[in-house]
Amino acid sequence: MHSLRPALLTDRYELTMVSAALRDGTADRPCVFEVFSRRLPAGRRYGVVAGTARLIDLIREFRFDPADIEFLRRTGVVDDPAADWLSRYRFGGEIDGYAEGELFFPGSPILTVSGGFAECVVLETLVLSVLNHDCAVAAAAARMVTAARGRALIEMGSRRAHEEAAVAAARAAYLAGFRFTSNLAAGQRYGIPTAGTAAHAFTLLHEDERAAFASQVATLGKETTLLVDTYDISQGIRNAIEVAGPELRAVRIDSGDLAVIAQQSRQLLDSLGATETKIIVSGDLDEYAIAALAAEPVDMYGAGTAVVTGSGAPTAGLVYKLVEVAGRPVVKRSEQKATIGGRKVAVRRHKPTGTATEEIVVPQGVPDHRPNDRLLQRSYVVDGEPVSLPTLDESREHLRQCLISIPWEGLKLSAGDPAIPVTVVPAE
Amino acid sequence: MHSLRPALLTDRYELTMVSAALRDGTADRPCVFEVFSRRLPAGRRYGVVAGTARLIDLIREFRFDPADIEFLRRTGVVDDPAADWLSRYRFGGEIDGYAEGELFFPGSPILTVSGGFAECVVLETLVLSVLNHDCAVAAAAARMVTAARGRALIEMGSRRAHEEAAVAAARAAYLAGFRFTSNLAAGQRYGIPTAGTAAHAFTLLHEDERAAFASQVATLGKETTLLVDTYDISQGIRNAIEVAGPELRAVRIDSGDLAVIAQQSRQLLDSLGATETKIIVSGDLDEYAIAALAAEPVDMYGAGTAVVTGSGAPTAGLVYKLVEVAGRPVVKRSEQKATIGGRKVAVRRHKPTGTATEEIVVPQGVPDHRPNDRLLQRSYVVDGEPVSLPTLDESREHLRQCLISIPWEGLKLSAGDPAIPVTVVPAE
Repeated sequence: MHSLRPALLTDRYELTMVSAALRDGTADRPCVFEVFSRRLPAGRRYGVVAGTARLIDLIREFRFDPADIEFLRRTGVVDDPAADWLSRYRFGGEIDGYAEGELFFPGSPILTVSGGFAECVVLETLVLSVLNHDCAVAAAAARMVTAARGRALIEMGSRRAHEEAAVAAARAAYLAGFRFTSNLAAGQRYGIPTAGTAAHAFTLLHEDERAAFASQVATLGKETTLLVDTYDISQGIRNAIEVAGPELRAVRIDSGDLAVIAQQSRQLLDSLGATETKIIVSGDLDEYAIAALAAEPVDMYGAGTAVVTGSGAPTAGLVYKLVEVAGRPVVKRSEQKATIGGRKVAVRRHKPTGTATEEIVVPQGVPDHRPNDRLLQRSYVVDGEPVSLPTLDESREHLRQCLISIPWEGLKLSAGDPAIPVTVVPAE
Repeated sequence: MHSLRPALLTDRYELTMVSAALRDGTADRPCVFEVFSRRLPAGRRYGVVAGTARLIDLIREFRFDPADIEFLRRTGVVDDPAADWLSRYRFGGEIDGYAEGELFFPGSPILTVSGGFAECVVLETLVLSVLNHDCAVAAAAARMVTAARGRALIEMGSRRAHEEAAVAAARAAYLAGFRFTSNLAAGQRYGIPTAGTAAHAFTLLHEDERAAFASQVATLGKETTLLVDTYDISQGIRNAIEVAGPELRAVRIDSGDLAVIAQQSRQLLDSLGATETKIIVSGDLDEYAIAALAAEPVDMYGAGTAVVTGSGAPTAGLVYKLVEVAGRPVVKRSEQKATIGGRKVAVRRHKPTGTATEEIVVPQGVPDHRPNDRLLQRSYVVDGEPVSLPTLDESREHLRQCLISIPWEGLKLSAGDPAIPVTVVPAE
């Protein structure tokens, strides 16, 4: 197994830059790096900030072990002064940013890392890995939550994602409003409620479906979910209710034309007196498939592949750019149209009714304050010390409130402009 | 930081099935599970087996720590007998499968896990997480290698993927023929050559581009790559050669119309006497963009987002299905058309010239042997003990040979049928 330390989860060039900056005396030059996206994935109307607390935990552990240093020297990545500097590395700067669960739009400065050049630049790869992944999943998951219109969602995509990415994906989906995850490590690490009862293999293992159902009910009780589509769905439902009685909590259907089958299954359950037995559907559901089932008698959705792969947008397009050196804004040529240098302050402006109207971003200055403005940045790390953060449940509630606040068009699943514009206002 | 053990990287239902199977006496029933894909991602002509050695290492560590057991009991996932069974868990069965670097097609049985039901079913989530991720990246990477026509590729997508998925992606890309990765952990864990020198931030940090280049050359020598597109590319190239001399190893260009810029840059470098200085291009390159640069004077490609996200197919669509119980083939209803129960033996059939013509899969039997047949399965785990595996470099060479063996249409980037058919032949 690999090191517990995240420090080598880093692109080589971050460390060669440290080597060169140490040698030429620029390593401690005060710098500001900013994380933002130039555009949202095609058709998306908002992004969701996710992963920041996970990132801060990793930054806390961001140290180079002796084995890491030995590797870096042996492979010629760094010279002696840099190896020595890395062996003593500990981030001592400041990190500010949007809260987890906050919405973002093109140009929103969702994370600002400031300190000496070298101590900030070595965090680039890890910062982007965490945020690009978690924000991508959260944005897709949030759309599914909207599409589900209050019905519960289970995240069950672990098998479609890298084994560790799956845990982070479960966290991001929960943040976005999913109610359960199938992933046990996500339950252990983050306290997310887990769900799951049996797969088709369990039915195939037994002499027949009734034997499998009887075994499951004997162990898990009637407050369980029986998977009824291994053979014939109608017979599966009859078997389920015969074995468990009408008190059975739920049946799950994982295949077929779910709209038609949900209707038929509801009627059949009701005719068997199982009027309280829930119907859970799964099987390649994305936000559009979920929306299409809105009128059907479905009680809960299981979503897998689409949520963990960002439903067509598996990475959030966030970049980590140097925007200020020694108090002076900097920007590279190809970004001069899209980007503005300098540390930025961001507020979201709202109508008196609470509906968000725009985001104001001011480089190297402070926005004029209006009623109903909300400052979007908070402190994550001060002088290298992480500050106390909201709980995951608080972040989840924050996102729920943010989604209520945007104009209704912003929640449409169809392609469209960002829900609100981001206006960059030059400082006075 | 989390446990080093991978056992909770698992869907809850695997463990509830263990609980029920222990109680009803089916937990040790001999079973065969098979990993295969029903279809390739849209338009793809082959899949690439990747991640199996990584998976076997994880299975070796697949044990439930006391903290894991405590979590599972506290949250009601398992009952006492199952908790006791899990605390003593160690896979004791057999794992066979295709070699890493082997090609696969719809229906290819790329991994076969056999043993008692419970000991096999608990591995499902981990098996699929690893293989679905790594195979997705390897397949995309292999297409980029074909598109690059012998030119070298650097994998630099870590920042666009979950931080641990990035390391696995670097491994899969190297397996597929990439020459370098930017990811240092991949260098440390797998011995993959790492590459990378400086980002735009390093230039912005300095008073001007020449100062940045001079610093980089002072530290890294002339065998380095200077990133020349922070401001004006032509001036950047002039600055690079003035600072480093015509012995400079390479320049990198990360923006703009790369076809035009590569031409202009080559002419400019030649006119400055830097005829040996290489041109590396990067910036949202996928297999199609790489192919489009085939005629341009490019020496090396850097690929990021597209390779780590599987270039449109971020998961490989592999499933883990129970195909045999106590020697009897099993199959669930909805799969009866696509799938055939029973443990399978697979061979690839070739012309005398060495060109592959089809894959023959025989359930519960052995294919008739013909000259130029190649048996596709090898042993990974025997009686719970992992066997010695090829090195990553050997697997890389194996894939290279496999790609030579398929009909030339199979290497086209355009959408098409699988390169060769998979024929399921009923046993005599």
